[in-house]
Amino acid sequence: MAANEVTLDFHRTERIGFDEAIFCQGKTIDHLAHILETAQAKGASLLLTRLAVAQLEGLPKGLRDALDYEPVSRTAYFGKLSRPEGPARVAIVAAGSSDAHVTREVARTLRYHGIGSSSYVDVGVAGLWRLLDRLEDIKGHPVVVVVAGMDAALPTVLGGLVGSVIIAVPSSNGYGVAEGGHTALNAVLASCAPGVPTMNIDNGYGAACAAVRVLHAIDRK
Amino acid sequence: MAANEVTLDFHRTERIGFDEAIFCQGKTIDHLAHILETAQAKGASLLLTRLAVAQLEGLPKGLRDALDYEPVSRTAYFGKLSRPEGPARVAIVAAGSSDAHVTREVARTLRYHGIGSSSYVDVGVAGLWRLLDRLEDIKGHPVVVVVAGMDAALPTVLGGLVGSVIIAVPSSNGYGVAEGGHTALNAVLASCAPGVPTMNIDNGYGAACAAVRVLHAIDRK
Amino acid sequence: MAANEVTLDFHRTERIGFDEAIFCQGKTIDHLAHILETAQAKGASLLLTRLAVAQLEGLPKGLRDALDYEPVSRTAYFGKLSRPEGPARVAIVAAGSSDAHVTREVARTLRYHGIGSSSYVDVGVAGLWRLLDRLEDIKGHPVVVVVAGMDAALPTVLGGLVGSVIIAVPSSNGYGVAEGGHTALNAVLASCAPGVPTMNIDNGYGAACAAVRVLHAIDRK
Amino acid sequence: MAANEVTLDFHRTERIGFDEAIFCQGKTIDHLAHILETAQAKGASLLLTRLAVAQLEGLPKGLRDALDYEPVSRTAYFGKLSRPEGPARVAIVAAGSSDAHVTREVARTLRYHGIGSSSYVDVGVAGLWRLLDRLEDIKGHPVVVVVAGMDAALPTVLGGLVGSVIIAVPSSNGYGVAEGGHTALNAVLASCAPGVPTMNIDNGYGAACAAVRVLHAIDRK
Amino acid sequence: MAANEVTLDFHRTERIGFDEAIFCQGKTIDHLAHILETAQAKGASLLLTRLAVAQLEGLPKGLRDALDYEPVSRTAYFGKLSRPEGPARVAIVAAGSSDAHVTREVARTLRYHGIGSSSYVDVGVAGLWRLLDRLEDIKGHPVVVVVAGMDAALPTVLGGLVGSVIIAVPSSNGYGVAEGGHTALNAVLASCAPGVPTMNIDNGYGAACAAVRVLHAIDRK
Amino acid sequence: MAANEVTLDFHRTERIGFDEAIFCQGKTIDHLAHILETAQAKGASLLLTRLAVAQLEGLPKGLRDALDYEPVSRTAYFGKLSRPEGPARVAIVAAGSSDAHVTREVARTLRYHGIGSSSYVDVGVAGLWRLLDRLEDIKGHPVVVVVAGMDAALPTVLGGLVGSVIIAVPSSNGYGVAEGGHTALNAVLASCAPGVPTMNIDNGYGAACAAVRVLHAIDRK
Amino acid sequence: MAANEVTLDFHRTERIGFDEAIFCQGKTIDHLAHILETAQAKGASLLLTRLAVAQLEGLPKGLRDALDYEPVSRTAYFGKLSRPEGPARVAIVAAGSSDAHVTREVARTLRYHGIGSSSYVDVGVAGLWRLLDRLEDIKGHPVVVVVAGMDAALPTVLGGLVGSVIIAVPSSNGYGVAEGGHTALNAVLASCAPGVPTMNIDNGYGAACAAVRVLHAIDRK
Amino acid sequence: MAANEVTLDFHRTERIGFDEAIFCQGKTIDHLAHILETAQAKGASLLLTRLAVAQLEGLPKGLRDALDYEPVSRTAYFGKLSRPEGPARVAIVAAGSSDAHVTREVARTLRYHGIGSSSYVDVGVAGLWRLLDRLEDIKGHPVVVVVAGMDAALPTVLGGLVGSVIIAVPSSNGYGVAEGGHTALNAVLASCAPGVPTMNIDNGYGAACAAVRVLHAIDRK
Repeated sequence: MAANEVTLDFHRTERIGFDEAIFCQGKTIDHLAHILETAQAKGASLLLTRLAVAQLEGLPKGLRDALDYEPVSRTAYFGKLSRPEGPARVAIVAAGSSDAHVTREVARTLRYHGIGSSSYVDVGVAGLWRLLDRLEDIKGHPVVVVVAGMDAALPTVLGGLVGSVIIAVPSSNGYGVAEGGHTALNAVLASCAPGVPTMNIDNGYGAACAAVRVLHAIDRK
Repeated sequence: MAANEVTLDFHRTERIGFDEAIFCQGKTIDHLAHILETAQAKGASLLLTRLAVAQLEGLPKGLRDALDYEPVSRTAYFGKLSRPEGPARVAIVAAGSSDAHVTREVARTLRYHGIGSSSYVDVGVAGLWRLLDRLEDIKGHPVVVVVAGMDAALPTVLGGLVGSVIIAVPSSNGYGVAEGGHTALNAVLASCAPGVPTMNIDNGYGAACAAVRVLHAIDRK
Repeated sequence: MAANEVTLDFHRTERIGFDEAIFCQGKTIDHLAHILETAQAKGASLLLTRLAVAQLEGLPKGLRDALDYEPVSRTAYFGKLSRPEGPARVAIVAAGSSDAHVTREVARTLRYHGIGSSSYVDVGVAGLWRLLDRLEDIKGHPVVVVVAGMDAALPTVLGGLVGSVIIAVPSSNGYGVAEGGHTALNAVLASCAPGVPTMNIDNGYGAACAAVRVLHAIDRK
Repeated sequence: MAANEVTLDFHRTERIGFDEAIFCQGKTIDHLAHILETAQAKGASLLLTRLAVAQLEGLPKGLRDALDYEPVSRTAYFGKLSRPEGPARVAIVAAGSSDAHVTREVARTLRYHGIGSSSYVDVGVAGLWRLLDRLEDIKGHPVVVVVAGMDAALPTVLGGLVGSVIIAVPSSNGYGVAEGGHTALNAVLASCAPGVPTMNIDNGYGAACAAVRVLHAIDRK
Repeated sequence: MAANEVTLDFHRTERIGFDEAIFCQGKTIDHLAHILETAQAKGASLLLTRLAVAQLEGLPKGLRDALDYEPVSRTAYFGKLSRPEGPARVAIVAAGSSDAHVTREVARTLRYHGIGSSSYVDVGVAGLWRLLDRLEDIKGHPVVVVVAGMDAALPTVLGGLVGSVIIAVPSSNGYGVAEGGHTALNAVLASCAPGVPTMNIDNGYGAACAAVRVLHAIDRK
Repeated sequence: MAANEVTLDFHRTERIGFDEAIFCQGKTIDHLAHILETAQAKGASLLLTRLAVAQLEGLPKGLRDALDYEPVSRTAYFGKLSRPEGPARVAIVAAGSSDAHVTREVARTLRYHGIGSSSYVDVGVAGLWRLLDRLEDIKGHPVVVVVAGMDAALPTVLGGLVGSVIIAVPSSNGYGVAEGGHTALNAVLASCAPGVPTMNIDNGYGAACAAVRVLHAIDRK
Repeated sequence: MAANEVTLDFHRTERIGFDEAIFCQGKTIDHLAHILETAQAKGASLLLTRLAVAQLEGLPKGLRDALDYEPVSRTAYFGKLSRPEGPARVAIVAAGSSDAHVTREVARTLRYHGIGSSSYVDVGVAGLWRLLDRLEDIKGHPVVVVVAGMDAALPTVLGGLVGSVIIAVPSSNGYGVAEGGHTALNAVLASCAPGVPTMNIDNGYGAACAAVRVLHAIDRK
Repeated sequence: MAANEVTLDFHRTERIGFDEAIFCQGKTIDHLAHILETAQAKGASLLLTRLAVAQLEGLPKGLRDALDYEPVSRTAYFGKLSRPEGPARVAIVAAGSSDAHVTREVARTLRYHGIGSSSYVDVGVAGLWRLLDRLEDIKGHPVVVVVAGMDAALPTVLGGLVGSVIIAVPSSNGYGVAEGGHTALNAVLASCAPGVPTMNIDNGYGAACAAVRVLHAIDRK
């Protein structure tokens, strides 16, 4: 049944400038295998997101071996990356190392699209000096992706200090009222800093795509 | 019917060190008049909180004139204040002037208990210098009450910079996900700064009482 | 009491490239008057958002007359606009005319910053041709602000068709589960279209600021 | 204890035109075995929904072997299907292959009632051409069941393009605000397209029953 | 500004079989006047929903007089109804007279489309005989719209007794946990009766449109 | 239209031992007038709940004068009460005088059914002695209705001290997280005291009916 | 550490007429062993609720063997039951066999207190005849405990047909909006049937205790 | 990748008087090992919170052996404690032994900072004498940390009886509406007792830090 339940969108790049990525959560092994085989037959490379270890291990060995998998972000590259890595044009700033599942998804999605990034991690505002020390470096990037869980105070502080394009990603890590990331999400939405939009909780992939849109706009100039 | 629906707790001060305050929301004019007359008969002074203008105006003139009313905080003093104002031992720090309904309730409740306070308003972290400029002054107080709405990033930043006792009060001002103050409340609860407890949304009265408990503990030493 | 509760951030432009705007919701008339007089004394112009008619009417006549007020968006310009209007670099796309309170806030905030915009209103996807007819025009802008209430399907459809930078603003208009805009907000956050970040519900001001950040990044190139 | 805790409704078909189905979630193995034995004794066939693999495996071998089980939808037929499969009168349209747990429950419930269906899967509106290409085919069915998770934009787009009876089923697949399907459900309820009712999240069984009601109404004419 | 913020969808009938209705909530008087004048110029009739009395009274007298307004449902017909009323093919069943704001919106939307209806009101299941007495009458209609607030037990009971197409509309009337209709909505979604889909809270207009879709499917046969 | 939208349940007393009461919220003046006239014609008395002042004032003078209205509870008796008041068999215990809108609805509903009650108001557990002083009196009643808002600690304390039947009613009075009474409701549901069931928020009428059921069970013995 | 973290309430029976039960969820094996040994030393019997299989299996064999455990309700009796089982004075009515985890907790708690019960299971109102057939039997009990999940329509229907004391228990079984039992809980709270109070979700123990309170009140007469 | 994702805040003690603790939830084994090795190299001791058994077991044996781990609170000390244990200045009061995961986190965090504590556990107000018996002892401490789940009535009762500084911690233990601790949290926030602030659900670490702030304020005098 898997085959007629899959319709890939191979023309997305022409329309909007990036490839379809495969969101693996909820897909059966049969669906995933069918998708990979279709891409293989076309010679296309693919970015897979939210690929669980159990899904990975269920794939036929041939397909599994063709995947470059990173377990913390649960991302995988299928096939050869078509673009070389460019210079770091995106700063990835995160409040804590517990947000690595997001920051690595941002970095790997950017890399898939040929864009380099710099990481500034564990700079939560409860220890403000950690952020202030790195501020000038961060300002040097046209786009800043800021990842923050718990109370997500970092995007507000950053938004008041940096004039670059800022894209926030709330992180799901936390407990009590912070569990699942809804408090972080709402805090970013309610931020007093001007012009800081947000993605869904843990959506590092989406933040990277938004960064790509901005870089395309700059490059199109 | 009002009389047998009211039982004042005049012995609270002996038990826990502060008087009962009258929470006016939801009380009828008859209830309020009965309470004030009872206090008047005993020669007791009272603090009234959340007294709406419509309630105030419904009271008999004699009682109304005996009230010292402040409309932004909706607080009133009934009778003569029994304690002189002491030196400023509490710093009241607020993100914006829109939080005046809370900051003034804190200040007036403290004043009712004979405690002075200093106000540091409009120091939201989206313009970080406003807070940093006043940090040394704030640190000089044993207790800091921090009022913040929207994303409430201020308590986290403050909690990482100041070693005093800090009590947070989320403010209800805001729109969208910030409406009603739930995002501010959750952000404070999820704060990464260590040891910053919170009161209910807009509960300036409670924050002042918590400050009184701390000052009593210091004074008892 | 108003004076010592207000601290304006006149240096914001140097830091991040735009002026502080005055968020009027929750401010007393005294606060607003004090702010306007301070700006007047400095010869500064101001953008005011969420200025209710009742607040406007409470201001002294001299200050009120110095305001250019638009009632649907509840925005006002105080003083002379310092920047001439440039060409239309932002497309404002909205699902319905009921979203005018947001679309006009976007347009007027952009205008305040000297940026022109084009409006494409009433193009909800329940009548898909209305959007498809205007697609080429929309694509001509480097930034698209898309405003949508109810089920907010428009950002997803647009995000799959247009490669520009897209910033979504959910609108609060609706009833039942749509009341207050939370469904629209969540739908945008959960959007299947890649790279479409969002602002808080009804936050047209913030979307305009995010657009300004992008245009600055383009211009800095 | 199981026996006196079960009361089957064998007369439902006479009353409203379809058999009772057995909703297995929360039932003990003893309950299920008792139900199947009761049906077996009557020579009745049964449709089982939400039958977990663990429940299936706990059943006595004889009963287990009499079940035709499909693991993605977790449905099973018990006994011989009493109705032959008719022509495809229902179109099942789904945004993604991750919704197979729902689409297959719809198809198998319809098949149990003797009704054929056609599937149009992976036609999410982020790649609009995938839907437009199949629109004429879809329109040929008197009833369309549309399954969509995440932001559920598909029912709105479809509702504006197709005049058939449309029944929506939100899908639970997603993360962050989309987790559990509540955003998809609310988006469908708030849809701007006219006359698109919805079932509970993941309730493919119910959507199929609603389709049966419509087909009965058509056939009764 | 109103004119270029309105784009009517006059071709909806050709596409899906019914006219666009004007959802008035959130529209300015200027928007409404512009819409009515556009329709008037085309000689088109219109159905307006959620037209508040304040909006009605703000319209120019000429337009206001051309409206046939019903205040409980807040619906209005503009211009001459183009279709005569047919026989009663839809039964409208409601738990209480407090749901009249919904039941009348259903009836008037159906009437606008030329479809007659019968009303069975105040038949909540707390007094079960009221429903059972009318059951045979209700069964005579191919479509039943059932409106219920509070705990919305009526759709479940009805769904187990009647084989017609049933469309539920939760009503917002209630207090405590029932306030706003969310409990009624969830109760309908969770209904144990098979095949009873639902509209958004208070969406009588949508239920009528869904009924029209079913009647069209019957008539197309 | 009002007449055919009303179906009174005059046989409820025979079935379950009490009369139908008229829940007035959401009913039009026409509905109410029709109901009262129907009862008048039958010589029946009625209990009306949640009758707003605006509704009362809209009624024809003749009907209005036949109502015995109490504005805090918003209850009215129509016609002559058919039962004399019996001895106090129900204790009504309330945390504060702000709960009078509930306690009076309990007392008046009981009185309508001929049952007397005693009130113990303003005995919240923040001043525990107020409750302990009255404990023996309270224990003398077979049924205790306990009304509490805010954090609703009273039902738990009472439930651990009193062996009578206890029925809780959460009250909506409060602000911040207490607004609307949901915290009070949840606190009662989560109570550690054994066997304390609850009604909906502010449902004093329902608590009185539950008390009547218990007293009937005692009397039937 | 376990010993000084446990303080049993052996005098509860004298105060309010029933023993303390041990709520096992969240307790460590050490806590449980300490409690059982304390009771054993006193020769006291105990009722344990929410005892997970993993906890049971972790206990020392001697204690484990002294427990009469029922796995569906997760209840256990420790020691010899001190009261013989009396006649059936409570009817336990449940919508479906999936609610056995609750109905058995009710029955076993009643049995612990020496009270007999009759069960009427799988009588959900989607097949109304199942309930109506047993109505006279049910009416013969002074107390009815009604357990219902999903949309919980059963308490409303029952409450309109039976004059006994009714206590509702919402059940957590369900999916989508019914998951966890919140919809069932809210539906019961919003019930149109008069005088039907409710316990927390799945709180069969509490419903049995409430029934005991009523039976005590009857017996005290 | 772990190394450049970690930035420890070793200067926190100088700024605000206590060390950074390591919140382990969400960190990878690599992150944790890197942190411990960094501390080891500096000769620093560390407090680790929310360290899951699986994380502990994943660490290299050398690091694992240097940890003093307590599994109920999931806390660990790394390295030698630098401060001797002082006298008991904090009373830890808890409603039930099920809250040991919180009470032990409080006690161990205090011990890490050299502060002694006394525990008063299983004193929930459903058996009020358990609390009253220990009241005088509790009052002897300048700070009281009160831990309570379910309906959290304990902080309110305590707050009305004790004048010390009180800090509440809601506990997550419970089921139905109490699941996850949100009801307990809201009950504390809505407490009628004056001046009782709260931490996030289960945040024993934070309560201990708040106590440290108070004790520092007392000692600074």
